[in-house]
Amino acid sequence: MVEHVLIVALMIELATPEVPQLIGLDWGTSSLRAFLIGHEGTILGERNGSDGIMAVDPETKDLRGDFSRIAQVAIGTWLTAHGPLPILACGMIGSAQGIAEAGYIDLPADLSAVGQQLTAIGLDIGELHIVPGLQKTATETTAPDVIRGEETQLLGLLDPERTDPTTVILPGTHTKWVGCQGQRVTDFSTSMSGELFGLLSTSSILSRLAEPTDDFHPDAFDWGLSVGADDPAAVTSSIFSARTWALEGRLHPEEINDYLSGLLIGAEVTSHLSTTADSSATVIVCGTADLTMRYTHALHRQGRKTVDANPRAAATGLLRIAKQSGLVPTKENSHA
Amino acid sequence: MVEHVLIVALMIELATPEVPQLIGLDWGTSSLRAFLIGHEGTILGERNGSDGIMAVDPETKDLRGDFSRIAQVAIGTWLTAHGPLPILACGMIGSAQGIAEAGYIDLPADLSAVGQQLTAIGLDIGELHIVPGLQKTATETTAPDVIRGEETQLLGLLDPERTDPTTVILPGTHTKWVGCQGQRVTDFSTSMSGELFGLLSTSSILSRLAEPTDDFHPDAFDWGLSVGADDPAAVTSSIFSARTWALEGRLHPEEINDYLSGLLIGAEVTSHLSTTADSSATVIVCGTADLTMRYTHALHRQGRKTVDANPRAAATGLLRIAKQSGLVPTKENSHA
Repeated sequence: MVEHVLIVALMIELATPEVPQLIGLDWGTSSLRAFLIGHEGTILGERNGSDGIMAVDPETKDLRGDFSRIAQVAIGTWLTAHGPLPILACGMIGSAQGIAEAGYIDLPADLSAVGQQLTAIGLDIGELHIVPGLQKTATETTAPDVIRGEETQLLGLLDPERTDPTTVILPGTHTKWVGCQGQRVTDFSTSMSGELFGLLSTSSILSRLAEPTDDFHPDAFDWGLSVGADDPAAVTSSIFSARTWALEGRLHPEEINDYLSGLLIGAEVTSHLSTTADSSATVIVCGTADLTMRYTHALHRQGRKTVDANPRAAATGLLRIAKQSGLVPTKENSHA
Repeated sequence: MVEHVLIVALMIELATPEVPQLIGLDWGTSSLRAFLIGHEGTILGERNGSDGIMAVDPETKDLRGDFSRIAQVAIGTWLTAHGPLPILACGMIGSAQGIAEAGYIDLPADLSAVGQQLTAIGLDIGELHIVPGLQKTATETTAPDVIRGEETQLLGLLDPERTDPTTVILPGTHTKWVGCQGQRVTDFSTSMSGELFGLLSTSSILSRLAEPTDDFHPDAFDWGLSVGADDPAAVTSSIFSARTWALEGRLHPEEINDYLSGLLIGAEVTSHLSTTADSSATVIVCGTADLTMRYTHALHRQGRKTVDANPRAAATGLLRIAKQSGLVPTKENSHA
């Protein structure tokens, strides 16, 4: 299986290369990103593969061996070239479906202490340290929820010097909305608007009139944003307007999906911002370029300021956690 | 094609049979219900078939002939037995995809005048009279919408003696919410919560944990209702709780779909009732027994009173329209 995995290798050559300090793995359900990281956080090498945890048969008799062979393909040449390096992983690799259950930290969670709760697993290639996830405990009125991998991105995104409230949006199929105070995560929730968009744009009555296209239609998206923001509670009704406006000829077939995307994001953003305690909180959006543009646009329309996210937040977060845990010496220690 | 159509025939024998006055057809997209109706509205015969307008190939060279042959199978024996009778149809048969475009009446629409705007088409079996639909014209802020067939159900549902405001819910894949004042339709809108439930319960991440069952789970449905009603604007997020509660073991696999159904209906009902001008308006729900139970339960939870719907509203509506138009004499005329 390992032999067939797609590996995309990207080596960044530097004039005066930093010495590698850490191998960081962002090991999710369907992908594995590996980073060779220098002391200052410079990414000296990066490999992206599709060998997430689903690449290992859950019925395997050699779980550790299978995961170890995948890691060997991804990072073996770095280990050979640079000698033993600490290896730190975040994401679903630390779930019950991964190599070992790495536990959760309850909310409110201090991200500066995540490094104190790593789980270590011995593999043929060396010891694999795994970051815990975060969990929101159920109450009578709020559902439980967990994240795994996002805690590391968050730590990489948040400026350690700042102590003010921040809202972080990690858009995707299941978009995460996270409330932070400095480096403390106080709340998070999951929105399914990405998955809903996928279902509606491919399998619903709305998809019959739509003509999918890679072009972005800003006017249609903007129109949808305003309809969704206007009455977010009516979203299960207002999405039908994608059909009736199209039948009326006011929405063209290639505009329908952007109208629908705008409507769902407009309703989601309005609903979430209305429950955010501090409306002056900085909002950080961290996702693909396309989704980041859509959410940023929706936020600006509501008068909210956004801050660009660190595009390699996971790598930065992994280095910060490695320093917290002592896997990598902090600047003070290394100078001592 | 006509030979293979499923026909379910139900003849109601009466001790002192009324004389048939009208053949009414509720001719929709995927089904055809035919009624043999007496002067007092008694249904003397009923036939349900799956030969809706989609049973005719849109490329046919003999549109009228094809529809005429379907009608012949459905009602030919009634015509033979009782001699020529007026034939009145409502539904998608009057759309551009049907036998002829029967037009629309603009809102606000006086249902007592629908009979003045029938469209007549000559068929081999006799003249087919078709009921117009209703249309809501687009404004700058509200989307256009149309209904066809529901106007006839509404006329059959609404008590002609009452002049107070009524909200009518016609639940289904695309649930219609209709606002009426006496027999005037003042507004309507379409909710896609039925289609969303279908997509989410079969094709989303929520469906992976669910075990579909025909049993109804009132506690799970009720729980969903309360979550949906509590914050309808958050519905695209709160549906994810069907997954997290299930992972927590608090929702059993066979309860997930009823929780989800409750959540979507709870959010829909709360959102719609909040925009209904008159909160004391009577609410009538007219749908399948299962959906009617679900919506009625959601309405009672919000302190709203409901009135049971006439289960054969379409037949009653067709007779009322036939009397408006003079196709069937009114009591006064027949006694004259």
